[in-house]
Amino acid sequence: MSAPLPPHPPSPGPHSRDNGDGLPARERIGAWFIGARGSVATTAAVGISALGAGLADVTGCVTELPGVAGPDLPLPGDIVIGGHDITAVPLVKRAEELSTAGVLPAHLPRVLAGPLADVETRLRPGIRHVGAASRREAADRVEADLRAFQAEHRLDRVVVVDLSATEPPAPVDDVFATPAAWERALDGGAAAPPTSSLYAYAALRAGCSFVAFTPSPSIRLPALTTMARQMGIPWAGSDAKTGETLVKAALAPMFATRALRVRSWSSVNLLGGGDGATLADPDNAASKIASKARGLEAILGHPVEGPLHIDHVPHLGDWKTAWDHISFEGFLEVRMNLQFTWSGCDSALAAPLVLDLVRLMSRAHRAGENGPVGALGFFFKDPAGSDEHRLAAQWDALVAWRGRHGAEGRA
Amino acid sequence: MSAPLPPHPPSPGPHSRDNGDGLPARERIGAWFIGARGSVATTAAVGISALGAGLADVTGCVTELPGVAGPDLPLPGDIVIGGHDITAVPLVKRAEELSTAGVLPAHLPRVLAGPLADVETRLRPGIRHVGAASRREAADRVEADLRAFQAEHRLDRVVVVDLSATEPPAPVDDVFATPAAWERALDGGAAAPPTSSLYAYAALRAGCSFVAFTPSPSIRLPALTTMARQMGIPWAGSDAKTGETLVKAALAPMFATRALRVRSWSSVNLLGGGDGATLADPDNAASKIASKARGLEAILGHPVEGPLHIDHVPHLGDWKTAWDHISFEGFLEVRMNLQFTWSGCDSALAAPLVLDLVRLMSRAHRAGENGPVGALGFFFKDPAGSDEHRLAAQWDALVAWRGRHGAEGRA
Amino acid sequence: MSAPLPPHPPSPGPHSRDNGDGLPARERIGAWFIGARGSVATTAAVGISALGAGLADVTGCVTELPGVAGPDLPLPGDIVIGGHDITAVPLVKRAEELSTAGVLPAHLPRVLAGPLADVETRLRPGIRHVGAASRREAADRVEADLRAFQAEHRLDRVVVVDLSATEPPAPVDDVFATPAAWERALDGGAAAPPTSSLYAYAALRAGCSFVAFTPSPSIRLPALTTMARQMGIPWAGSDAKTGETLVKAALAPMFATRALRVRSWSSVNLLGGGDGATLADPDNAASKIASKARGLEAILGHPVEGPLHIDHVPHLGDWKTAWDHISFEGFLEVRMNLQFTWSGCDSALAAPLVLDLVRLMSRAHRAGENGPVGALGFFFKDPAGSDEHRLAAQWDALVAWRGRHGAEGRA
Amino acid sequence: MSAPLPPHPPSPGPHSRDNGDGLPARERIGAWFIGARGSVATTAAVGISALGAGLADVTGCVTELPGVAGPDLPLPGDIVIGGHDITAVPLVKRAEELSTAGVLPAHLPRVLAGPLADVETRLRPGIRHVGAASRREAADRVEADLRAFQAEHRLDRVVVVDLSATEPPAPVDDVFATPAAWERALDGGAAAPPTSSLYAYAALRAGCSFVAFTPSPSIRLPALTTMARQMGIPWAGSDAKTGETLVKAALAPMFATRALRVRSWSSVNLLGGGDGATLADPDNAASKIASKARGLEAILGHPVEGPLHIDHVPHLGDWKTAWDHISFEGFLEVRMNLQFTWSGCDSALAAPLVLDLVRLMSRAHRAGENGPVGALGFFFKDPAGSDEHRLAAQWDALVAWRGRHGAEGRA
Ligand SMILES: NC(=O)c1ccc[n+]([C@@H]2O[C@H](COP(=O)([O-])OP(=O)(O)OC[C@H]3O[C@@H](n4cnc5c(N)ncnc54)[C@H](O)[C@@H]3O)[C@@H](O)[C@H]2O)c1
Ligand SMILES: NC(=O)c1ccc[n+]([C@@H]2O[C@H](COP(=O)([O-])OP(=O)(O)OC[C@H]3O[C@@H](n4cnc5c(N)ncnc54)[C@H](O)[C@@H]3O)[C@@H](O)[C@H]2O)c1
Ligand SMILES: NC(=O)c1ccc[n+]([C@@H]2O[C@H](COP(=O)([O-])OP(=O)(O)OC[C@H]3O[C@@H](n4cnc5c(N)ncnc54)[C@H](O)[C@@H]3O)[C@@H](O)[C@H]2O)c1
Ligand SMILES: NC(=O)c1ccc[n+]([C@@H]2O[C@H](COP(=O)([O-])OP(=O)(O)OC[C@H]3O[C@@H](n4cnc5c(N)ncnc54)[C@H](O)[C@@H]3O)[C@@H](O)[C@H]2O)c1
Ligand code: NA
Ligand code: NA
Repeated sequence: MSAPLPPHPPSPGPHSRDNGDGLPARERIGAWFIGARGSVATTAAVGISALGAGLADVTGCVTELPGVAGPDLPLPGDIVIGGHDITAVPLVKRAEELSTAGVLPAHLPRVLAGPLADVETRLRPGIRHVGAASRREAADRVEADLRAFQAEHRLDRVVVVDLSATEPPAPVDDVFATPAAWERALDGGAAAPPTSSLYAYAALRAGCSFVAFTPSPSIRLPALTTMARQMGIPWAGSDAKTGETLVKAALAPMFATRALRVRSWSSVNLLGGGDGATLADPDNAASKIASKARGLEAILGHPVEGPLHIDHVPHLGDWKTAWDHISFEGFLEVRMNLQFTWSGCDSALAAPLVLDLVRLMSRAHRAGENGPVGALGFFFKDPAGSDEHRLAAQWDALVAWRGRHGAEGRA
Repeated sequence: MSAPLPPHPPSPGPHSRDNGDGLPARERIGAWFIGARGSVATTAAVGISALGAGLADVTGCVTELPGVAGPDLPLPGDIVIGGHDITAVPLVKRAEELSTAGVLPAHLPRVLAGPLADVETRLRPGIRHVGAASRREAADRVEADLRAFQAEHRLDRVVVVDLSATEPPAPVDDVFATPAAWERALDGGAAAPPTSSLYAYAALRAGCSFVAFTPSPSIRLPALTTMARQMGIPWAGSDAKTGETLVKAALAPMFATRALRVRSWSSVNLLGGGDGATLADPDNAASKIASKARGLEAILGHPVEGPLHIDHVPHLGDWKTAWDHISFEGFLEVRMNLQFTWSGCDSALAAPLVLDLVRLMSRAHRAGENGPVGALGFFFKDPAGSDEHRLAAQWDALVAWRGRHGAEGRA
Repeated sequence: MSAPLPPHPPSPGPHSRDNGDGLPARERIGAWFIGARGSVATTAAVGISALGAGLADVTGCVTELPGVAGPDLPLPGDIVIGGHDITAVPLVKRAEELSTAGVLPAHLPRVLAGPLADVETRLRPGIRHVGAASRREAADRVEADLRAFQAEHRLDRVVVVDLSATEPPAPVDDVFATPAAWERALDGGAAAPPTSSLYAYAALRAGCSFVAFTPSPSIRLPALTTMARQMGIPWAGSDAKTGETLVKAALAPMFATRALRVRSWSSVNLLGGGDGATLADPDNAASKIASKARGLEAILGHPVEGPLHIDHVPHLGDWKTAWDHISFEGFLEVRMNLQFTWSGCDSALAAPLVLDLVRLMSRAHRAGENGPVGALGFFFKDPAGSDEHRLAAQWDALVAWRGRHGAEGRA
Repeated sequence: MSAPLPPHPPSPGPHSRDNGDGLPARERIGAWFIGARGSVATTAAVGISALGAGLADVTGCVTELPGVAGPDLPLPGDIVIGGHDITAVPLVKRAEELSTAGVLPAHLPRVLAGPLADVETRLRPGIRHVGAASRREAADRVEADLRAFQAEHRLDRVVVVDLSATEPPAPVDDVFATPAAWERALDGGAAAPPTSSLYAYAALRAGCSFVAFTPSPSIRLPALTTMARQMGIPWAGSDAKTGETLVKAALAPMFATRALRVRSWSSVNLLGGGDGATLADPDNAASKIASKARGLEAILGHPVEGPLHIDHVPHLGDWKTAWDHISFEGFLEVRMNLQFTWSGCDSALAAPLVLDLVRLMSRAHRAGENGPVGALGFFFKDPAGSDEHRLAAQWDALVAWRGRHGAEGRA
């Protein structure tokens, strides 16, 4: 699990040659990050570059595990990174900040200055403050950026990953219900489309698959999920599962299969960093809290009392501390409890999943899947296309899906 | 999961009538506890009686869950309890102590005084201090007790469950290697057979299936596992998984399937109660520690550093507190950690599993299985007949096994 | 610290005879509880009765410790309990509920049925929904109840303890600023006096000392503190320190005296029980949160970031679980952290303090103190009459104060 | 508390000029570290250099707090560092390792390369494997090193601090009982003097005060404490209190002053680093465990059950994680518990205390104190010259002692 990948020559681009073994050839893939200068995106860019250069090992990469890995997946060196952001802080500066914060090894930003400068040239200004008059224009520009990226770098396909700051939940509104209403809304009207959804729409138009890494509305509006289905484009989401919810998904089935009655499950998340600041705004936290809560009830089969807090504690920086307290009843009504404290570095947990999802989404696209790819629920708090929240069952589903790609036995 | 079972008339005994629905009829089962006056056995006796009388709900009973339950399993009222112990403290007194300690609801020992007095009449003196001259005699007496129990109560079959104090690991010795050598050892010689193994031998001789609920040698000596196989008798073990190891089995696969590198896993178990006192003797703890450690390495695929302590803290009584600290590495060598504190009542956790295992072992026996029943690994720290330690996979195996009994779709 | 007090004949009442040793004689004291049927008050009534009858030991009683104890303090048997409440649930029923919940030993409510029935006869209906027209009438009635209690039971003095449900903070309003304005407000006007303050006012009028055990406004309105001072009546408060804040007061000075820089202190309190339900109303919680937060900044000398949550988790019953996470910096900016989980039974922690405060307030009153007794800050989250929040320094102040009563050397 | 000290010119050496304000002038002090290349000593050397150069702030330095600080204490720039060690790894290399491990800020080892190279020139080979024949010779050489250091750098006085790896407890033996027996033992005999005691003896002979920062025997042998007293030399010890024991000393008085009965206190310490490796040897851990256990009983007034483990978990590096579980009883025998997890960087916690102790010991020496300085018990797990283990009381004692130096009011 831990040996560094050998440095690897990038594959030749569209349409990549056969691997010579009868297997589908690897492709040349674009990874386009919305929020490309954020902590997760920067860590992913550094990490993918480091893996490509043989400077890092694959700890944290699910797509390197037996059962998931396969010669049909792009290698890090096959992936070209670009993206949108609304800030202009140089990527290498963000990398240095992350290194000072202990998220990245001290030497990497320096050693990878070259590759990061290359990525820098492929970053474009994101969408901000869109007036009713300029919605379509914004979406068109994003679409054009995506098409230019794919053409210029001769990419077999592009995966767009939303890694931008979490938005509040979208209001329930008719204009988000159907493709037709959506098209009209783009040309003006009271209900403003969420920015994340403008990006998702542009991605679909450009023929790119999409990953909703955040709980923002993005592609999850009914109008857009319908559109994806109609256009035959696969997507995955939403809200990557990297901390407390991950532990929940592993632990809750234990109570269920042992017939122990969970009576309360209280959760507190303390987080610093940019994400923490965003979530300190209760509107934005609403998205996150909703996606965190869904899984537990699904696993246990009944609602469970207990608060769920997300608090911004700047001093914690990129480290997140979550405390969960679970009270439960056993035989003859005896009360017991379990508590855990998770102390994780969010960006380090998220970044390899970004790589995994780029690899797997490109594979799904190539395999002709369309709509939400439920088999990727393993990665998400609020899995689209699946009702399964138990981590082990999600893992089994992922492995089975990969097996259908012919990965089994060859990884 | 939580409705009380309706009070239920005991089924008529050998050979129980057909249920009238084409399914195998329920049988009348004996549950024979070695260590019948201990905390677990007493809680199991009270709990089974309470369930039979409709005074308790089925929280904690795995065999009541969809996928495992089935009309082919004996009901609590179908089970007659007997056993051996070396102390003579009346069962109802033990029940009152457990009630004062908060393990049993205050009213139950009083309300169930009648059924407990019945069980009392079926308890026999256990084996203690066996000299070389009296080994066979001791085993013979136990066998006779078992045969008498079965005959007197017209039982379809008897399941012997070892719930006695944990013994030290057996020395590796030729006399424990084959049935023939074992028979010779019974008639004298330097190597003394573990007492738990004398019980297991007697159980086999009496045609009873066996559950190694503790980590004691009991049936796990090669001589006896061979004998079980030869005699066509099934057994299950060993060391019921009720606390920290249960959590480990649920959590460790999370690290493995997320490719997170576990670097240390430190465990501390504080326990009071009779079991705590026994385990304070390092010889006895050795059994327990070995069976606790095996699973983690199996799940992670590599050894992991970190201490594993079992400490006796009398003031904690029947409550066990376990603290685990796991340090792990993510992408780009970032170090993170998870810690949990489990605060459980061991007897309340163990007792329903005793019921589950009596039900399931009687079913396995009836189904003609023999040797270690790997499908019951879900219940054990050191699963016999299986290499699977991941809790969710063990659950899947259990459900699949029950499905083969025709339980599927009818539960 | 743990031997049971010998059963003790009540002292003879006003004016109690000399102890014969030159020390001030013990007095006969009334303890009047506002909220007399609540968990804390009931536990206090049971506990004081049990101590008086030699059925309990003094664990948890600060006034039994060397340095604080003294023959000048009333014995449990010298204390007559009465009170107000707005519910009519019989006290003995409340005691049984607390016993089922594990707060009181199973046998006590039964054994103490007699004494509790006596207390029952001394409980009076409390103030509810007071219209503008009936404010003064309500206060007058409470005053009359107090005077009747003192007369009937020939009490040397009465201590009124507010143990009723926490109220929201009082609005800042001129009518609460001076005795004169307050008197006018009693006869009508827009600003409704807090109910707890009506009780406190009545207590002052009846010449009783007062303990603000809760964070409710009660005696803390400027109008009433001025009145207490003018009338020469001592009082103590506010908000008894029984859980997380207690631990904070012990731990925070460690950081301060080691020059470790606390950067965040996050607190979560999960509580069931009646108090939990009250505090789930954010208005009421506001009082509590404010009084909890004050201490930390005072000890550390600077504000500290971090959330402070109080959540109602009914399943936890009378047990409170608090989790605190403290991040701090050491030499050369190294970041470290400490976290703790407190799992306490609030009523069991609070009840002996009620006894302590009745004893000590009666002593302060007798000693002629008036206004807030800062030396009792040891007991409170928001100590009146003192700026000291460090637990050890508060202890030293308490011992010094008791020394001035001549307790030193004789305890 | 957190502003960096201004860079400060070293004071002129023996005998330093008057400060011009009537106060005792600052002196020029030598800090001689036994174990000078270890983690604590290296961090102290880097830290003192950084403070002297105005590159660090005083977080963690007790001697910078009001009540302890004073113009009579040497400034960092007044302190010249030297020492003994048995390894030859360059100090700057050790500093870089500590920086990679996150104990020191990345830039410091580079920026301070000059000062560290200076310290390097003042390090001498330590004592290893001393045969019976060469005991006196070893002690003589150490004494000579100390005398040369003082002379060469024109130091007013030298404080020797034992920062070397912990040794096992010394056997109780007559040869360690009196100065005369000790002198004979130096010239041969069966009982080998602990190496740490050879250093302490040499320090006394060279007229240096001594700090027993570790639990090793060093100066604590009766022979040497007598000698110190006879020679009028002060010393302080033993075993610096930097983690779990520090928290214990702050928390245990809370239970005592609230009359809560502590029934068990279980402690687990997980540590990596050099110190962890040493303590993994149970002989050496014995010293540490004994000094850790003493305090609790002293504070609570009765022995308390519960294990105390020290485990070596290499992956944790310089970070130590300690978990403590405290079960206690309150009023009416209700059981409650508190648990805490301390996650600290031992070297970062210890290093500023080294500076504090050098400053304070030099001051004690100058003030003419001799024998164990009980007022420094605040810093130690096993305070010599004092029976006080309560942290707040130790703090008060320290402040009072500093007050007697005239620090009060001028700091
Ligand atoms: N780190 C994790 O473990 C994790 C897990 C699940 C979800 N997420 C989500 O991933 C997202 C990124 O997290 P992060 O820690 O990198 O946050 P961050 O605040 O560091 O980065 C967000 C980036 O988005 C950019 N951005 C904001 N609005 C934009 C817009 N309209 N167009 C383009 N870019 C825009 C910001 O400028 C910033 O660079 C967040 O939404 C977070 O909730 C993270
Ligand atoms: N409680 C759990 O969660 C759990 C989990 C796994 C395993 N176990 C094991 O179950 C066993 C029972 O636990 P417990 O808490 O009831 O312990 P316990 O000490 O209360 O009971 C043990 C009983 O065994 C009896 N006994 C001892 N030697 C005997 C002998 N030679 N023959 C017959 N009886 C004998 C004792 O008299 C006692 O009544 C222990 O070995 C324990 O390690 C318990
Ligand atoms: N338990 C602790 O450790 C602790 C610590 C500090 C403060 N307190 C405070 O002590 C108070 C009592 O706590 P509890 O757990 O007993 O709560 P509880 O809810 O069990 O009891 C409150 C009682 O007050 C009564 N009450 C409500 N309004 C009243 C009124 N107007 N007049 C008279 N009685 C009235 C209620 O009927 C109830 O019987 C709460 O305010 C709580 O916040 C408790
Ligand atoms: N770090 C803390 O918080 C703390 C607290 C209390 C006590 N201590 C004690 O401080 C000591 C140092 O801790 P550390 O983390 O720096 O350990 P370390 O292992 O990093 O350093 C010990 C040093 O002592 C040297 N040494 C060993 N034997 C020697 C000898 N005979 N003569 C001279 N030098 C010798 C070693 O070579 C090494 O450089 C330990 O004894 C530790 O138990 C540390
Ligand atoms: Na879903
Ligand atoms: Na196995």
